Amino acid sequence: MWTYEAPVADMLHVLTRVLAAPASWAEQPAFAELDADTAAEVLAQAGRFASEVLAPTNAPGDLHGCTWTPAGVTTPPGYRAAYRAFVDGGWPALACTPEAGGQGLPQLLNMALFEMLAAANHGWTMYPGLLHGAYEVVLHHAVPELRARYLAQLVSGEWLGTMCLTEPQAGSDLGQVRTKAELIAGAAANGAPVAITGSKIFISGGDSDLTDNLVHLVLCRLVDAPAGTKGLSLALVPKVLPDGSRNAVFCDGIEHKMGIHGSATCQMRFDRAQGWLIGEPNRGLAAMFLMMNAARLHVAMQGVGHLEAATQNAWRYAAERLQMRAPQRPIDAARNVATGAGPDPIAWHPAMRRTLLTLRARTDACRTIAYWCALLLDEADHHPDAARRAAAADHVAILTPVAKSLFTELGHRSADEALQVWGGYGYVHDYGIEQTVRDSRIAMIYEGTNEIQAIDLVQRKLLDDGGARAGALIDELAQEVARCAAQPALQAFAETLADQLVRWRETLAALQAGRADDGEYPLRVADDVLAGVGHALMCWAWARIARTALDPAHTPAAGGRSAEAWQQSATFGLQWLMPQAQVHWRRALQADAALPFLVA
Amino acid sequence: MWTYEAPVADMLHVLTRVLAAPASWAEQPAFAELDADTAAEVLAQAGRFASEVLAPTNAPGDLHGCTWTPAGVTTPPGYRAAYRAFVDGGWPALACTPEAGGQGLPQLLNMALFEMLAAANHGWTMYPGLLHGAYEVVLHHAVPELRARYLAQLVSGEWLGTMCLTEPQAGSDLGQVRTKAELIAGAAANGAPVAITGSKIFISGGDSDLTDNLVHLVLCRLVDAPAGTKGLSLALVPKVLPDGSRNAVFCDGIEHKMGIHGSATCQMRFDRAQGWLIGEPNRGLAAMFLMMNAARLHVAMQGVGHLEAATQNAWRYAAERLQMRAPQRPIDAARNVATGAGPDPIAWHPAMRRTLLTLRARTDACRTIAYWCALLLDEADHHPDAARRAAAADHVAILTPVAKSLFTELGHRSADEALQVWGGYGYVHDYGIEQTVRDSRIAMIYEGTNEIQAIDLVQRKLLDDGGARAGALIDELAQEVARCAAQPALQAFAETLADQLVRWRETLAALQAGRADDGEYPLRVADDVLAGVGHALMCWAWARIARTALDPAHTPAAGGRSAEAWQQSATFGLQWLMPQAQVHWRRALQADAALPFLVA
Repeated sequence: MWTYEAPVADMLHVLTRVLAAPASWAEQPAFAELDADTAAEVLAQAGRFASEVLAPTNAPGDLHGCTWTPAGVTTPPGYRAAYRAFVDGGWPALACTPEAGGQGLPQLLNMALFEMLAAANHGWTMYPGLLHGAYEVVLHHAVPELRARYLAQLVSGEWLGTMCLTEPQAGSDLGQVRTKAELIAGAAANGAPVAITGSKIFISGGDSDLTDNLVHLVLCRLVDAPAGTKGLSLALVPKVLPDGSRNAVFCDGIEHKMGIHGSATCQMRFDRAQGWLIGEPNRGLAAMFLMMNAARLHVAMQGVGHLEAATQNAWRYAAERLQMRAPQRPIDAARNVATGAGPDPIAWHPAMRRTLLTLRARTDACRTIAYWCALLLDEADHHPDAARRAAAADHVAILTPVAKSLFTELGHRSADEALQVWGGYGYVHDYGIEQTVRDSRIAMIYEGTNEIQAIDLVQRKLLDDGGARAGALIDELAQEVARCAAQPALQAFAETLADQLVRWRETLAALQAGRADDGEYPLRVADDVLAGVGHALMCWAWARIARTALDPAHTPAAGGRSAEAWQQSATFGLQWLMPQAQVHWRRALQADAALPFLVA
Repeated sequence: MWTYEAPVADMLHVLTRVLAAPASWAEQPAFAELDADTAAEVLAQAGRFASEVLAPTNAPGDLHGCTWTPAGVTTPPGYRAAYRAFVDGGWPALACTPEAGGQGLPQLLNMALFEMLAAANHGWTMYPGLLHGAYEVVLHHAVPELRARYLAQLVSGEWLGTMCLTEPQAGSDLGQVRTKAELIAGAAANGAPVAITGSKIFISGGDSDLTDNLVHLVLCRLVDAPAGTKGLSLALVPKVLPDGSRNAVFCDGIEHKMGIHGSATCQMRFDRAQGWLIGEPNRGLAAMFLMMNAARLHVAMQGVGHLEAATQNAWRYAAERLQMRAPQRPIDAARNVATGAGPDPIAWHPAMRRTLLTLRARTDACRTIAYWCALLLDEADHHPDAARRAAAADHVAILTPVAKSLFTELGHRSADEALQVWGGYGYVHDYGIEQTVRDSRIAMIYEGTNEIQAIDLVQRKLLDDGGARAGALIDELAQEVARCAAQPALQAFAETLADQLVRWRETLAALQAGRADDGEYPLRVADDVLAGVGHALMCWAWARIARTALDPAHTPAAGGRSAEAWQQSATFGLQWLMPQAQVHWRRALQADAALPFLVA
C-alpha cells in the first residue's frame, strides 16, 4: 500500500554533496552556526513528522474530505492532531527571523521541509503552506501596530494565513478584482482601517477548524482607485477581531474538487468586514508579489514531493509484484529479489525499468535544481557580498517560473506514468497512486498557471533586460561543462550540457530579433522555451550528480543510495530524457509556424 | 458546463470524404445496400441518443457511483432508463449478422457509435461495451445448443455479457489463471458442462441492475490441464440458469476507483457455478482473443471519444471566458466573439490557441486512423477479393495495438491538457473536464496495458514475420506521399510523411539486426517504436485531411467545419506536433543506451 518514507539520505546527499550548501552557509553570517550535522538532524526530525504523523492521514483525508456547514469548515479526521503536532514541533518558525521568534534557519531547509509535507499529505499542507508568505508580507509591509498584533502568531503557527486574490471574473487577470475597500477613518495610508466588501473564490483554508483565528490577506480596491492592477490594495482582515468578536467574513461553501480533498477551497464573502491596509494604497500587488514568489517556490516543492512519492511507491511495488518471466534477469541476482522458476518482479521487465528510471532521474534532477534555487534565495537575502546577493537574486528570478512549471508538470505527469506500474490496481483508490495523480494536478494551475509562468519567464525574465540575466545564468551553468570536460568519464555530460547552453543562447537571440517584427512570436513558443530551459537545467543537474558520484570525497551518506545508483540515474537522464530537449528548442525557433485564430 | 454534442458532421466528413468509405461498401456484397445517406442517418440517430439521452447521465453517474449490497449492484440514477432506450433503439444489433437478428451494418458504424457513447458517458458504456465481443465468441465458438440459448439475447442486448479474465495474481500474466473447471458429465469437449470455482477481479459489469441475466465468459483451467496459457479454457457461465434459478456466481464487492464511477468493477466469486465450455478445451485464450481484439479497438474508440469531448468543451469555454487583453486579435473579428475595450476571450491568447489546436489536430488524426482501421476490419471480413481481405487483416493487425495505445494516451493526456484551459475551474467537479481526465485514465490500462500493446506491436506484428506486414502497410501509406507530392500546396505534407516512412523502415531494419545479438533491445525501445509509428500514421492522416480539404469535390458536409478549418488543423499537426516524432525514432535506434536493472 501507499506509504511515504522521507528520503532524508537522498536529500542530504543533494544538499551537502551535490550542492555543497554548508560551504555557502559558512559564508553567510546568519547561518554561520549551521553545519551539515545540524541540517541532517533538522531534516531527520522533519522526515519523522512527515512519514509517521502526516502520511497516515493522507488517504483517509482524501476519502473523508472536508465538511462544510454555515458555521464553518471541519477538516478530515486526524488533521487537527497533525497540525497541533506541527505547531508544537516549532516547524512554522523554522525559517523566520530570530527577531520575530523564529529559528533563523535557511529557506533551503524550509523548502526541504515542505517537499516532505507535500509528499506526505498535499491537502493538509495547504493549510500551513501560506504561513511563511503571510509572515513575510506582515513583516515587511505592515505598520508596527499590526505587526505587533499578528506576527508572533504567524511565526508560531497559532494562527494561519490565507491569500485572497481570485474572484469569479478575476483569475489569471487580477486587474479585474472588484472587492471594495472603504476607508473607515483617516486618509488612505498604510495601516488605515477599512471596511472590506466582496466575494473571493478558490481560497485555500479560507476557513478551517485547525486554528482559532485566521489572517486573511485580501486584494481589494479602494473607492476611487484607478482601474486595473494599479488600483489594487492589500488589506489584512482577521477572522476574529482583536476584541474577540467574529468579523464579517463568511465561508459560503467549499468546492468539490478533483483532488486535495482535505484542503478546504472556500468561497468567501466579506460583508463590510473590518480590515487594515497593509503596504501603501494602490500598491497591493507589489506587496502580494512578495508572497507569491515564495508561494511559487513552495508550489515547485510540491512537484518535487509528488515526484518522490510516486517514485518510491512505484519502486517498492515493482520489486514485489511478480508477473511473467523477464526477458533478461539481473546478472547479480543476489542484489535483487530472488526468484524461482515462476514469474519475475515486474521491476525486471524493460518497460518497467524505463518507467522507474525515468521517475528516479526526474526526481533527482528536480530536487537538485529546487535546492539550488532555495540556496540562491538564501544567498540573495543573506550573503555579505552585495554582488553575490545581486547575482543570486537574478538567478532566482529566472529559476522560479521554470521550477514552478517544470516540477509541477513532471510531478503530475510522473505520478500519472507511475500509475501504469500498478496496472489495474493503480486505478483503485486503495493503492494510493491515483490520489497522487489527482492531488498533484492542482499545482500546475494555482499561483499562476504554468502557461503564465512561461510568459513571465520569456517576457520579464529573459527578454525585457536584453538577456543580461539569462547570460549570467548560462555562464554559471557553463562552469559545470568545464568541470565535466576535465574528466574522461563525463565527456557525454559536458557535450550535451554545452549543446544545451548553445541552443539556449541561440533561442534568446532569435526571440530578441524576431519579436521586433512580430511581438507575439515569443508568446507562441513560450511553453517550449520554458521546457528547453528546464531540460538545460536538468542536464546541468545530472552532470553535477554524475560528477559528485565519481568523486571519492563525496561518498553518499550512510543509509542512502550508492554512488553507482546516483550515476545510473544521471546517465539514464542524459541518454533517455535529454533527447526531448531537441523538440522544444526546435519549436522555439519556429518563428513563422502558423498559430491561427480559431475558425469554426 | 460540460456537454457533449455528437460531432456528426465531422464524423461523416472523415468517413465519406477523407476515407471514402462508401466506395468500399459498394465493393462488399454485405454492405451493397448501404450508402452515405443511410450512414448519415444512422450516425445522426446515434448522435441524438448519445447527446440527449446519455450525456445528461454522465456527471450524476460520477457523483453517485454504483451501490453494492450482497444482493447485487445498483447502477446510478438514469442508467437503467438509458440502457432501456439503447436496447429499444436496436443499437446492440447494429453490426450483428442478419442471420442472428442483427442489422448487418459495418463495424465502422458500430465503432463510430461507441466513440459517441464513450464520449457521452464512459462509465455507462462499459456495460454494453463487451456485448459485441461476447456475441462474436458465442457466434463463432459455442455449440449450437448454447448459441440457441444465448445469442439472440446478446444481439438484442436483453442480456449483457462480461469478460472474466483477471485474478489477483494474474493481471498481464494470464498464464497464472487458477479458476478451476471440473467436468460435470462426459468428456472435455466444446459444450461440455462444467462446474466453475474461483475468484476474478476487475470484472466490468460483473453484476448490475440493467438486465435480468448476464452471460459471463470465464477464463478457467480444466483439472489436469497444462500449466500456463496452454491450459486455459473458456466457459460460458450465466448469472441465471436456464431453469430460472440463480447460478452460484456472486459479486462480493466493487472497487472504489479513480474514475468511471458509474461502471461497477466487480470482485466475482464462482462457487461450483454451472457453466459450459465454449470452444475447444485448453484453447480458451484463442477464443478469448477474438473478443479481446474487438475490445482493443473499442478501447481505442474510447480514446477518440475522450479527445472529442475534451476538445469541444475546451473550445466552447475558451470562446466564452474573458481574461486579459490578447497580444493580437483576429484580423476578421466578426468571425469571432465581439469584444469592447475589456478583456478578450482566452481563445485569442497564444498559449490557449496552441492547446486548442493541439486538441483539434489530435482528434482529427486519431478519428481518421480509427475509422480507417474499422473500415479495414470490415474489408478483412467481407471483401469478395481474398487478397484484399488478407491485406486488410494484415494492416489491422499492426494498427490495432497502435490505435489502442496512441488514442488512449492522447485521449487522457489531451483531457489533462484541456483542463488547463479552465484554470482553477478545471479542478472543480462542476465543470466536467476533471471527470474526463479521471475516466479516460483507465483506457491506458485495461485490455492489455499500453506497454503490453507496444510489445505486441514490436515483437508479434513488426518483427516476427521479418517485417513483411509492416512493409505492406508502409507501401500503402506511401501512396499518400505520391498524391500529396503531386500538389504544390501539399509539398510539406509529402516530405514529412516520406521522411516518417523512411525512419520507420530504418527502425525495422535496426531492430531486426540488433536483436540477433541482444534480444532485449526491441523491448527496451518498444514504447518509442509504437509512438514513432503512431506519429507516422498521424502524419498520414493530416496529409489526407489536408488533401481532401483542397479538393473541390469534397466540400465538407453542411453544419460541419469549413475546408479552411480542416486545413488549419492538419497544418498545425504537421508544424507543431510532428517534431515530436524525431525523439521517438531517435531513441528507437539507441540500441546501446543503458537501461540497467535497479540498484538501490
